[in-house]
Amino acid sequence: MVDIQRVKEERGIKLEKVGIKRLRYPIRVLVKGESSYQTPVATAELAVEVPYDIKGTHMSRFTKIVHKYKDEIHGQHFIDMLRDIKNELETPRAYAKFAFPFYLEKNAPVSREVSLMEYLCELEGFTDGENDAMSISVSVPITTLCPCSKAISEMGAHNQRADVRVVVDVSNEMLWIEDVIQAVEDSASSPLYSLLKRVDEKYVTEQAYKNPQFVEDVVREVYGRIEKLYKSTANCNFTIECESYESIHNHNAFASTSYRHEP
Amino acid sequence: MVDIQRVKEERGIKLEKVGIKRLRYPIRVLVKGESSYQTPVATAELAVEVPYDIKGTHMSRFTKIVHKYKDEIHGQHFIDMLRDIKNELETPRAYAKFAFPFYLEKNAPVSREVSLMEYLCELEGFTDGENDAMSISVSVPITTLCPCSKAISEMGAHNQRADVRVVVDVSNEMLWIEDVIQAVEDSASSPLYSLLKRVDEKYVTEQAYKNPQFVEDVVREVYGRIEKLYKSTANCNFTIECESYESIHNHNAFASTSYRHEP
Amino acid sequence: MVDIQRVKEERGIKLEKVGIKRLRYPIRVLVKGESSYQTPVATAELAVEVPYDIKGTHMSRFTKIVHKYKDEIHGQHFIDMLRDIKNELETPRAYAKFAFPFYLEKNAPVSREVSLMEYLCELEGFTDGENDAMSISVSVPITTLCPCSKAISEMGAHNQRADVRVVVDVSNEMLWIEDVIQAVEDSASSPLYSLLKRVDEKYVTEQAYKNPQFVEDVVREVYGRIEKLYKSTANCNFTIECESYESIHNHNAFASTSYRHEP
Amino acid sequence: MVDIQRVKEERGIKLEKVGIKRLRYPIRVLVKGESSYQTPVATAELAVEVPYDIKGTHMSRFTKIVHKYKDEIHGQHFIDMLRDIKNELETPRAYAKFAFPFYLEKNAPVSREVSLMEYLCELEGFTDGENDAMSISVSVPITTLCPCSKAISEMGAHNQRADVRVVVDVSNEMLWIEDVIQAVEDSASSPLYSLLKRVDEKYVTEQAYKNPQFVEDVVREVYGRIEKLYKSTANCNFTIECESYESIHNHNAFASTSYRHEP
Repeated sequence: MVDIQRVKEERGIKLEKVGIKRLRYPIRVLVKGESSYQTPVATAELAVEVPYDIKGTHMSRFTKIVHKYKDEIHGQHFIDMLRDIKNELETPRAYAKFAFPFYLEKNAPVSREVSLMEYLCELEGFTDGENDAMSISVSVPITTLCPCSKAISEMGAHNQRADVRVVVDVSNEMLWIEDVIQAVEDSASSPLYSLLKRVDEKYVTEQAYKNPQFVEDVVREVYGRIEKLYKSTANCNFTIECESYESIHNHNAFASTSYRHEP
Repeated sequence: MVDIQRVKEERGIKLEKVGIKRLRYPIRVLVKGESSYQTPVATAELAVEVPYDIKGTHMSRFTKIVHKYKDEIHGQHFIDMLRDIKNELETPRAYAKFAFPFYLEKNAPVSREVSLMEYLCELEGFTDGENDAMSISVSVPITTLCPCSKAISEMGAHNQRADVRVVVDVSNEMLWIEDVIQAVEDSASSPLYSLLKRVDEKYVTEQAYKNPQFVEDVVREVYGRIEKLYKSTANCNFTIECESYESIHNHNAFASTSYRHEP
Repeated sequence: MVDIQRVKEERGIKLEKVGIKRLRYPIRVLVKGESSYQTPVATAELAVEVPYDIKGTHMSRFTKIVHKYKDEIHGQHFIDMLRDIKNELETPRAYAKFAFPFYLEKNAPVSREVSLMEYLCELEGFTDGENDAMSISVSVPITTLCPCSKAISEMGAHNQRADVRVVVDVSNEMLWIEDVIQAVEDSASSPLYSLLKRVDEKYVTEQAYKNPQFVEDVVREVYGRIEKLYKSTANCNFTIECESYESIHNHNAFASTSYRHEP
Repeated sequence: MVDIQRVKEERGIKLEKVGIKRLRYPIRVLVKGESSYQTPVATAELAVEVPYDIKGTHMSRFTKIVHKYKDEIHGQHFIDMLRDIKNELETPRAYAKFAFPFYLEKNAPVSREVSLMEYLCELEGFTDGENDAMSISVSVPITTLCPCSKAISEMGAHNQRADVRVVVDVSNEMLWIEDVIQAVEDSASSPLYSLLKRVDEKYVTEQAYKNPQFVEDVVREVYGRIEKLYKSTANCNFTIECESYESIHNHNAFASTSYRHEP
């Protein structure tokens, strides 16, 4: 059977990424400080570089590799998977991104009622054989209460749900998803909960009112806390964005920044 | 050239709807009390009934009819279009739905600064030759401030963006989109604006705090106002849903109800 | 602490549904013919009827009940959950819908390579104390190859991905998700796979070409097969929709119908 | 009235972008070779840099500037708007992105029937007072027919809808959206149409079959054509991605690359 992908390529154009997107696959992810796993469905993107003289790649191998690694996809396994892609697809550079929901058990602040909160995460990385890189992205939903609205109004203050997305480079130093979530929730007017009794609702309402935060403030607070999560400043490399679903507008406010350690 | 759609169909199964979805087309919609038009892009769905002994329909005719009617698609033109579909596609029953954004110029409540607010609308209807039906759906974004949170907290109250969707039957009596929007905004803790100066932000913050509303309250308030928009109770037929993007949860609260005049 | 929800309600309007939407929660679902489970994340909607003289409902109880039932949410457990909601929230009628991805291991048709395919499912139901109802919805992605394009063209035929959504009433007779998937894939020009080697790609290409199907045909074929899944015609109640992401248009073609046994 | 945004900021962290997202606003865009306009609704994102010693920005000014420029937002007007943002918000750097649908009238290839095709576009740019940059993004839906499937199968070949997204730098040389669309459609197995009669369907089916293209091929073909659109190589700077909604899988294939002229 003819292999069309092996035909000579003469246009002389390197393709930076060739691969698959939106592959949905159940995976397993390790939970901090436990030997237990979570089993979310991931949305995966995998790609390789195709050099200027090669016609294309063999797409079916991506799924095969995902199927092989699905039960251990965190940490070093992710790098191993990237190297496998590089070898199996005979390419200078392999790339992967896995997006999945992650859950934490959370107690309501006063009643202590238990429920689960969802945080959307992404593992992303590449290898070129010499260098590996890997980052973790975590989206944390929070409440922001507007300091301006509070200051100028005789009563009340507008507040709303917001999403904080933090991307941390873990190429040289591992951070836990759980610690990133904590850093963000500590920076919010209030964290969110899936279950609040009335005593809890009173608490979070007052808590948010006492702790107003612009999107600008949230980003700066998270920045300070993420910086401290790294043991070595040399490994520090992250971006932060806070997007707030304004309760007084039908559009969103946002702030973002990044940090990259320059030696 | 063979016409496969004309082949005999022997499975004996009537198809309630056969047609096209997600056709994006620029249209024109008349503005209340003006001879002017808005020119939004619509997402259109059109379908016909296919009887048990007919193999299928001719999909290209749907686009042709949309192209013909695109400059006048409101009111009686919509019904005319449905009848055209029925005749051109030789079917017992024709159906259409057009979703599009609609804009109103709005003054900020204190500074009077002008900006535009978007409201998502849908025209939907069918004809079977004897009976025509048509409805208008309008989605209005608002602020809801939680009465419980206000009552139990020493200061502040959680509030958030919410969407109110109203579907009104206009088969026998025309209502204006603008009047439905007004009815919803009058029922909210506060309307939303695209532009608010600080004097306005103070106003809407205090306004919302003075006027707390559960999703249940919003639906009941809108219900009362929509009922009054109809000149004749006999024409009254509508549904209302309010969905609130809770600022203290990562899920939404909602309430819905409907009214149908029974003779 | 005051309970605002207990205040007297005087507007006299019954609310058909009051509850929560888009609650994301990990659940467990039983797999056919095995004692094993899948552990997807569900997107849940839960609601109750609020009578004309009651102000509102206690939203936190919904999450509490989901947390309680999350490990056993299929079959009779779903009905039990609905009854629990009805009792805990003191309402005439309780409603729930859980949407979640479901996976089947599938062998490529020639190489027999193993991979997982995703099917989006929904459990939906209500109870009013006297009557319970429950349905299962399954979305199955397939290939459709156009019979008209094949018949009129000298070579080739346009084909594309399509989604078939089947909703089956299981109030009186349980059907398995796996059997509904089989019924749909047997009605397609070809099923889809997550992993196909070249020998498989040849097979599915030729298979689809030999088996052209309009969206109208797919719906009628599925109709015949679903009807046969029910042991008793008296329990037959379903809807089917096929939506095809046309490869020659930027809009979709669709067909839909329903069956309801009338005694 | 206190201006909280003017309070001293002591955390010493520069914010790269602070602004608004998902503002929906009707705008006007000039059509090539005509004095006529299209009037789409844009989804706008606007932001400024906030220096390390400034607390935040005044969000309402963004909407005010959008309202001012909405009727002329293409070409030099876009740069003028960026400079206005920079001045009004007293910032070192201003940024904007406007996404909107654009329509072309298209004749079916044989019957010459007229219909409109939608192409999603984005204008994006920034100014720091000394340098301005601006790019145009165009998404063009096409058909791809798989060369491998055609070569190995006795009959037929899988084909599907795909999206090609091209981002061209127009900081130093203006390109027309219409010319980018042409370059992409000339690189496809076949362009898409909103309306095809049977004679046209035969034509596009055969056309696609004669002209098989992997996503890799599409990107390389578009690359060659976009390069030629620029009068001067020195201005050449673009990225291309093709994503194909595979008709035999439930995931997508993609290829991407970029070109940046290095002096």
